[in-house]
Amino acid sequence: MADAGGLERVIERGRAGDPRALARLISLVENGTGELRPIMKALAPHTGRARVVGLTGAPGVGKSTVTAALVAAYRERGLRVGVLAVDPTSPFTGGALLGDRVRMQDHATDPEVFIRSMASRGHLGGLSRATPQALRVLDAAGFGVVLVETVGVGQAEVAVASVADTTLVIAAPGMGDAVQAAKAGILEIADVFVVNKSDKPGAQETVRDLRTMAGMARRGEGDWKPPIVTTAAVRGEGIAELVRRSGEHWAWLDSSGEREVRRRARAREEISAIAVAELRERAGGLPGDTRLDVLAGKVADGEIDPFAAADEIVAAAVAARG
Amino acid sequence: MADAGGLERVIERGRAGDPRALARLISLVENGTGELRPIMKALAPHTGRARVVGLTGAPGVGKSTVTAALVAAYRERGLRVGVLAVDPTSPFTGGALLGDRVRMQDHATDPEVFIRSMASRGHLGGLSRATPQALRVLDAAGFGVVLVETVGVGQAEVAVASVADTTLVIAAPGMGDAVQAAKAGILEIADVFVVNKSDKPGAQETVRDLRTMAGMARRGEGDWKPPIVTTAAVRGEGIAELVRRSGEHWAWLDSSGEREVRRRARAREEISAIAVAELRERAGGLPGDTRLDVLAGKVADGEIDPFAAADEIVAAAVAARG
Repeated sequence: MADAGGLERVIERGRAGDPRALARLISLVENGTGELRPIMKALAPHTGRARVVGLTGAPGVGKSTVTAALVAAYRERGLRVGVLAVDPTSPFTGGALLGDRVRMQDHATDPEVFIRSMASRGHLGGLSRATPQALRVLDAAGFGVVLVETVGVGQAEVAVASVADTTLVIAAPGMGDAVQAAKAGILEIADVFVVNKSDKPGAQETVRDLRTMAGMARRGEGDWKPPIVTTAAVRGEGIAELVRRSGEHWAWLDSSGEREVRRRARAREEISAIAVAELRERAGGLPGDTRLDVLAGKVADGEIDPFAAADEIVAAAVAARG
Repeated sequence: MADAGGLERVIERGRAGDPRALARLISLVENGTGELRPIMKALAPHTGRARVVGLTGAPGVGKSTVTAALVAAYRERGLRVGVLAVDPTSPFTGGALLGDRVRMQDHATDPEVFIRSMASRGHLGGLSRATPQALRVLDAAGFGVVLVETVGVGQAEVAVASVADTTLVIAAPGMGDAVQAAKAGILEIADVFVVNKSDKPGAQETVRDLRTMAGMARRGEGDWKPPIVTTAAVRGEGIAELVRRSGEHWAWLDSSGEREVRRRARAREEISAIAVAELRERAGGLPGDTRLDVLAGKVADGEIDPFAAADEIVAAAVAARG
């Protein structure tokens, strides 16, 4: 891939939707190698069209099942669909656990569906660091909708909202997670609430709990009011309604101007993350530089305080200019 | 508090363990005002003695109950005990939800126990940004043990391990969370596994699941093997055993040299976080500087790619030198 012409051809084939080229491009941006920047530069003019739908919720609510059902539903509506499934790295496999994604294989032979599992590699927030870049690859390849499924609760939910146009927060009955979910701040990020496994006992209670909590959230005139959709995704029930409600949110994003606000916020977030990573590297990553280690030892021994140590690091980062 | 002599007196009283002074100091470091640096500087020589025990686990496993039981147990052993309870900010109260901490009030009148709830303010990782600094305040005040309780699963667990000497990962039967917990990487961070609510059906299965998973983790010769302790914290059962096992881990930290390794890693983490925050501020926070907004607009419109935008931000941060 050192060959620039080779990279250009992969980018071209990826933009045309070739699955092998897409897989290669995402691997390249995920690994953060030297190809990352030329790829991003080449794709930039072709981005900004895909609709990104984030799916999040506590473990066990059936996120993968809902994702698979949505893939089928959007395919029926003629859209090409991308899926990014972001899994925490398992400490004992060193890779993404694919166990409960098996049902995704229903779509594995559909050339208009591209599914990619990404390891989160311990990155705070539960998203892979490369998620925004992988989204750009799929966006530039003309996928009409990209579903981003994250595992975990709490901070991961906030992170997925930062990359999605529409965020689906999924709950299930009898997990006692409604109140906990509120604590984790999901009221703020949910555009649509989904109560999956609606055939299980307690579904109506979960709906009621969510409705009560959603009613407590501060929302102004003209703000989007997140609807609550009940689904039994394993049987496809409620999925048409979920697609409809998500579509209404998409329409509202346009009519309210919020879509542009979110796209810009997303870009801000992405730029900041890259800039901070670069500054951090300057501060601690100079060849043979053990400055941070030495300072950490002094702080651990109480010789200096961490703020004084940070000042030295910042000074070093700035001095590394050029 | 503009009066430097006044600040000195608060620091002095805080070091002597005065609860009101401690509360004031933690508020000052939490708010990150101008007093933060002089406080940290004054306390630095007196830190490095407290034993920090992190408690984490999925919502509903009984973390607060275990925390309260441990407070009682350490008090019986004559230790002064600090508690930092880190809650995600509730979007509708704007503050920490204290609901299930009511039982902590058992200890509210004990002058040798200091309890503080901290809002996480949406900080990634589920810990308050000020947690390391608040720990320093309690450390310098001579608390023998400080318990840090975090809400949430997944990334928050990793974050608590970065501030704790000993990390207790708490599970409960029948929540289907054992396998999920493995996904979230807890095998790596658990020093002691706690199966709470051991009187509930399925406790032995949870123990067995944890044992199987713990056995799969890669650990070398001489590495600590996390024990599994069963508790019914609400009745105080198993708490003496938990204290004993945690004590064994503390002894191992010393004998293996791992304690020093962790203290240094913690200091590294703390310094880096402060340095990155400062660099980030330089990059985006110049008065009247809307550079990031302008660049975000260009990225959102596909005019430039986010890496080119980040380069401009880094150049600006570095140029802000002096």
